Amino acid sequence: MKNTFGQSVAVTLFGESHGPMIGAVLDGLAPGVRVDEDLIRMKLALRRGGAALSTARREADPFQIVSGIFEGRTTGTPLCIVIPNGDTHSADYAAMRSLMRPSHADYTAYCKYHGFQDYRGGGHFSGRVTAALVAVGAVAEEALREGGICLGTHLLSCADVRDREFGSLEEDIAALSGKPFPVLDEAAGEKMQAEILRAREEGDSVGGVLETAVVGLPAGVGEPWFDTVEGVLAHILFSVPAVKGVEFGGGFRLAALRGSRTNDPMRVENGQIVTETNFGGGIAGGITNGMPLLFRCAVKPTPSISLPQRTVNIETMENAELSIRGRHDPCIAHRARAVIDAVTAIALCDLMSQRFGTDGWRKNP
Amino acid sequence: MKNTFGQSVAVTLFGESHGPMIGAVLDGLAPGVRVDEDLIRMKLALRRGGAALSTARREADPFQIVSGIFEGRTTGTPLCIVIPNGDTHSADYAAMRSLMRPSHADYTAYCKYHGFQDYRGGGHFSGRVTAALVAVGAVAEEALREGGICLGTHLLSCADVRDREFGSLEEDIAALSGKPFPVLDEAAGEKMQAEILRAREEGDSVGGVLETAVVGLPAGVGEPWFDTVEGVLAHILFSVPAVKGVEFGGGFRLAALRGSRTNDPMRVENGQIVTETNFGGGIAGGITNGMPLLFRCAVKPTPSISLPQRTVNIETMENAELSIRGRHDPCIAHRARAVIDAVTAIALCDLMSQRFGTDGWRKNP
Amino acid sequence: MKNTFGQSVAVTLFGESHGPMIGAVLDGLAPGVRVDEDLIRMKLALRRGGAALSTARREADPFQIVSGIFEGRTTGTPLCIVIPNGDTHSADYAAMRSLMRPSHADYTAYCKYHGFQDYRGGGHFSGRVTAALVAVGAVAEEALREGGICLGTHLLSCADVRDREFGSLEEDIAALSGKPFPVLDEAAGEKMQAEILRAREEGDSVGGVLETAVVGLPAGVGEPWFDTVEGVLAHILFSVPAVKGVEFGGGFRLAALRGSRTNDPMRVENGQIVTETNFGGGIAGGITNGMPLLFRCAVKPTPSISLPQRTVNIETMENAELSIRGRHDPCIAHRARAVIDAVTAIALCDLMSQRFGTDGWRKNP
Amino acid sequence: MKNTFGQSVAVTLFGESHGPMIGAVLDGLAPGVRVDEDLIRMKLALRRGGAALSTARREADPFQIVSGIFEGRTTGTPLCIVIPNGDTHSADYAAMRSLMRPSHADYTAYCKYHGFQDYRGGGHFSGRVTAALVAVGAVAEEALREGGICLGTHLLSCADVRDREFGSLEEDIAALSGKPFPVLDEAAGEKMQAEILRAREEGDSVGGVLETAVVGLPAGVGEPWFDTVEGVLAHILFSVPAVKGVEFGGGFRLAALRGSRTNDPMRVENGQIVTETNFGGGIAGGITNGMPLLFRCAVKPTPSISLPQRTVNIETMENAELSIRGRHDPCIAHRARAVIDAVTAIALCDLMSQRFGTDGWRKNP
Repeated sequence: MKNTFGQSVAVTLFGESHGPMIGAVLDGLAPGVRVDEDLIRMKLALRRGGAALSTARREADPFQIVSGIFEGRTTGTPLCIVIPNGDTHSADYAAMRSLMRPSHADYTAYCKYHGFQDYRGGGHFSGRVTAALVAVGAVAEEALREGGICLGTHLLSCADVRDREFGSLEEDIAALSGKPFPVLDEAAGEKMQAEILRAREEGDSVGGVLETAVVGLPAGVGEPWFDTVEGVLAHILFSVPAVKGVEFGGGFRLAALRGSRTNDPMRVENGQIVTETNFGGGIAGGITNGMPLLFRCAVKPTPSISLPQRTVNIETMENAELSIRGRHDPCIAHRARAVIDAVTAIALCDLMSQRFGTDGWRKNP
Repeated sequence: MKNTFGQSVAVTLFGESHGPMIGAVLDGLAPGVRVDEDLIRMKLALRRGGAALSTARREADPFQIVSGIFEGRTTGTPLCIVIPNGDTHSADYAAMRSLMRPSHADYTAYCKYHGFQDYRGGGHFSGRVTAALVAVGAVAEEALREGGICLGTHLLSCADVRDREFGSLEEDIAALSGKPFPVLDEAAGEKMQAEILRAREEGDSVGGVLETAVVGLPAGVGEPWFDTVEGVLAHILFSVPAVKGVEFGGGFRLAALRGSRTNDPMRVENGQIVTETNFGGGIAGGITNGMPLLFRCAVKPTPSISLPQRTVNIETMENAELSIRGRHDPCIAHRARAVIDAVTAIALCDLMSQRFGTDGWRKNP
Repeated sequence: MKNTFGQSVAVTLFGESHGPMIGAVLDGLAPGVRVDEDLIRMKLALRRGGAALSTARREADPFQIVSGIFEGRTTGTPLCIVIPNGDTHSADYAAMRSLMRPSHADYTAYCKYHGFQDYRGGGHFSGRVTAALVAVGAVAEEALREGGICLGTHLLSCADVRDREFGSLEEDIAALSGKPFPVLDEAAGEKMQAEILRAREEGDSVGGVLETAVVGLPAGVGEPWFDTVEGVLAHILFSVPAVKGVEFGGGFRLAALRGSRTNDPMRVENGQIVTETNFGGGIAGGITNGMPLLFRCAVKPTPSISLPQRTVNIETMENAELSIRGRHDPCIAHRARAVIDAVTAIALCDLMSQRFGTDGWRKNP
Repeated sequence: MKNTFGQSVAVTLFGESHGPMIGAVLDGLAPGVRVDEDLIRMKLALRRGGAALSTARREADPFQIVSGIFEGRTTGTPLCIVIPNGDTHSADYAAMRSLMRPSHADYTAYCKYHGFQDYRGGGHFSGRVTAALVAVGAVAEEALREGGICLGTHLLSCADVRDREFGSLEEDIAALSGKPFPVLDEAAGEKMQAEILRAREEGDSVGGVLETAVVGLPAGVGEPWFDTVEGVLAHILFSVPAVKGVEFGGGFRLAALRGSRTNDPMRVENGQIVTETNFGGGIAGGITNGMPLLFRCAVKPTPSISLPQRTVNIETMENAELSIRGRHDPCIAHRARAVIDAVTAIALCDLMSQRFGTDGWRKNP
């Protein structure tokens, strides 16, 4: 399926960094979901990140909803949002046609597309394409919210600085909503931002870990094999540029612990079955158990750094040195949060619709 | 797609722990791949694990290839392998119909299937179903081998004991092949096994981290969005029971490092482009770069422990206590290795066939 | 997806005519559907056809349900039914390894599988494989019936003899159920059978047209583009061996008529919206309108005839003559009816589940 | 998958008749295919049809390629073409919000989308959306042409007037290319056009049958079950608005003939295996045999007629009468030809890529 993901609710991406526009098509969403353009605008702003911390190319993204909306609500037919590309300086990149940026997709794209790819600004691999994902993801998130499901992501760690753990999920999710630098502990956030700025000054970059919580998911969603909730979410999460690891609940920590410690004891509470701990991250046997869904994504440091790097010239097949000029993001982990929220919302709409049908899970179908 | 995974090469699973048989269908594999029943037998033995460390139910798996093979080679039509279930003591489980085992799929299956699921021995969620995956995975692995691609997995850590890192990959992969307890450092392996036995004595269980390497993959395989190599592999890896985390290359470690440290410098070596380090795990922008593919899976401790656990009775909706009787595996991480090799081989055959066609990537089509 | 079809409810086929067994996996069906082995047996008998009219290989198909059923109902996990192959005389076929039977799949299979295919008895292309489809289709049909949807197929024409049109659909469907030679007008059926026997005597074969009706489908199922009800059904109907044409409602007749004649006028009847005619076959814009679904399939004459035919020897690449020995079916159209009912039921379960979820369309979920 | 079709090469559609723009995304096509904007323009003109015969809304479609093209060739990443909607008179339609046009999708869309659909001009169901399909289909057709495969469609019959059969396929295909009214016999074409104009004068409409030929397809493409060439093509062909029947080779005619007449005898000719007749339409067992692919589509009369029709008012649930005002197409069969060519090209690119990989079937990869 390549650039389309999902079964009952599916998203398709298109566009290049320096082409006329980028866009995303979200198909299969229930009709009647309210579409709030301010919410889309806010999510796009979160993806762009704050001025001090991020790249120079910072104009607001002038998105246009071109289909799937009528009288302020989704129609149920494919929802397409496009974002025209503003002024881009292709000349800046032309010089780098042949110099492969290490740990970017330049070389792998060259191998896959035999040199026909649009190399300018990363082309179709550019993080810019995620703006379209974020825009349609905002609508998916609204659909979930109308179904009683909400989600949020914080920067659990960045460059060795650690945010506090999630506490009261509803409150934490509400607090994170709209916060440009998504931490639960402001002091930790200050330190992270200082580290990011220090990295920039040194021509370098840093990574981070993002942690996501989803509340309100019913039990019984997902499949025992292959389309496990973990598998479906991980599949799309690894599309978020720079994500190199995904773990659910206790994740990698579980490997060193005993079962007596990590099994989640169950009990009846107000007529509902709950678990006392949540090492499973809200999933057992690939299927939701009604507890909050919890997962973490590792975001590698931005590969664009201004320090000199060893690389190759693909045309001459000779070794070369490369210094990436211009202003580059010393960290994308905090910005990636908007993309993670978006793809999570899309994948969950898909899982819910597979289980309950197009609109069987909507509160007011 | 639920219990089917893959696009050009796809696998379908069926069967319950206590039904007549389990099986898997592997579809789309190239015709002409040699099928070695001894290899299948060996892989199934690796999945069963060693007698001392694992559960009592230990008969060899009497598999039968029921389709897709003719005169010792794959035909190109669906390859189905079934494994009849031997003597199973359903009575042992009947008593537990209503007591949900914590961190097992008992409760989530109940929610999804409204109580109609076969609860005996975990039913379709049983780890036993992976035997069918391992059987067809052995054929997928042979297809890769004939295409110049080989893979291996070791137990990087188990209960705080750590194996050495991968060194010379070809040698390490060869050494791991057929080794029941898959470690590179025998001394570490001894300690791990001691830890596993100690957990058993205490009625408890331990987890581990498995690390996989694949060599011989060409550059240019995978997609920029959604069907990234990471996404496709993670999707199927999370079907391996107890896997709760997947990371590629540097993985979660990358989050705390600087870009200048984790970018993989490139150079020309013998006319080939290589990277000097491999923090990307052989993938950039979702696409292979020709370097070894490297990833790790976190395996949680087996949830079946004999220590008493708090749980619920699903029929009376009352709190209860549960002690899982019988002999249970104190660790499945070393056994999961055979399943990880199998699903990796299947997913890579799929990725290769999507890129190069049904048999365009075979050395002797 | 190759040998798997469907999204929310999917079927996977495996097996060869002369292998140990054939089978089908039906995945995604709701839990709790009653499984009636007598119904499966009856459907398999309909597929085998009557002794006088059909091939010598006529033993009852000793199917085994190997997964997905527990205590007489579907579990919701993959339902697999296998049918062991009985005595087959492979020697009969070995002589024909190199002589391609015209209008069979011998040559196309050779091209696709490079000669590695199991050529005995048509291998995976054999009509025998449809027995597995029919077996799982019987369960899908029961699921529909429990959801208020029933279907039936009659032989509208065979060798120039024509059955009467559908009249009262519920009654006609009931009358067809279990009838070995599926006609509404017995006199027409007698003439058809006489034509079939005459063709056999002359070493020849005949074809026919099958017409299917489905009642009880709600309005609003299907998609505007690509996954139209017509498209999804036609996709799977063309898997029924020998089907070379599919038309819905007025079908090819519409091409020569005027819109004023073929538009279906609408009116309110008992608070429901109905159409006065049904040239649309129950579908408009790819989506059901609540009227009966109506379609027809053209079945070509069986390609196995004993008259001599011009063909090629694939090994010597020389022209050759071929007379297919043994008793062969002079007509498969009446037998194909069981396969058409099966695939229709499977595809409709899929469409219903995509729209209403796994069990949202069941009467007693 | 809903509004996306295809596996290795996939198309996604979006847009409504009266929204800002319509568009299509073609994903998975090989890199390096030359993109000829004049060809796209010509195909769009064929879809619009001639001025005398078709609707008033006749401005050229000002398409924009917004992604997937670089320096005049495909990049291999998703190719998106959008077509802004020009002046549309929404007011014309507002009055008809509640009156369901018979045999249009008005009522079925209402049932599926609960009244949230954009009803203006048919919304997402509008034939206008096919313009986007035609635009990306032109690129798919060029990819096939570079791979040695070409195709063409003629209007075999229209309102009882019949075109001559295909003769020399290469010549006929060349002659049809660019011909606005696609017939092989000009005299027949004149009569058809007279019939169409007569229908218009009478406020009525007519249908037709389109016949398509594809030459240059290699043998061995397609699957034995489900993804048969017939099934895949029929699936997408039924998305072409008004298509109600699809048949391959001899199609429905075969039902009344004998096997001795319709089996295609084989012989060796210039070292190639060919068939003497082509009742199979280039396909046996679901797989191409190297002969020309031949199929026919039945196109119903346009449902928009100005004669009064009985219908219902969906808001008041009362019977009503409707006369569709404005100029409407008395025939869309000749225009549908451009859409059939487009979807055929897209589906064949998909089938070729599944078999031979992304670019394994290109002449100069």
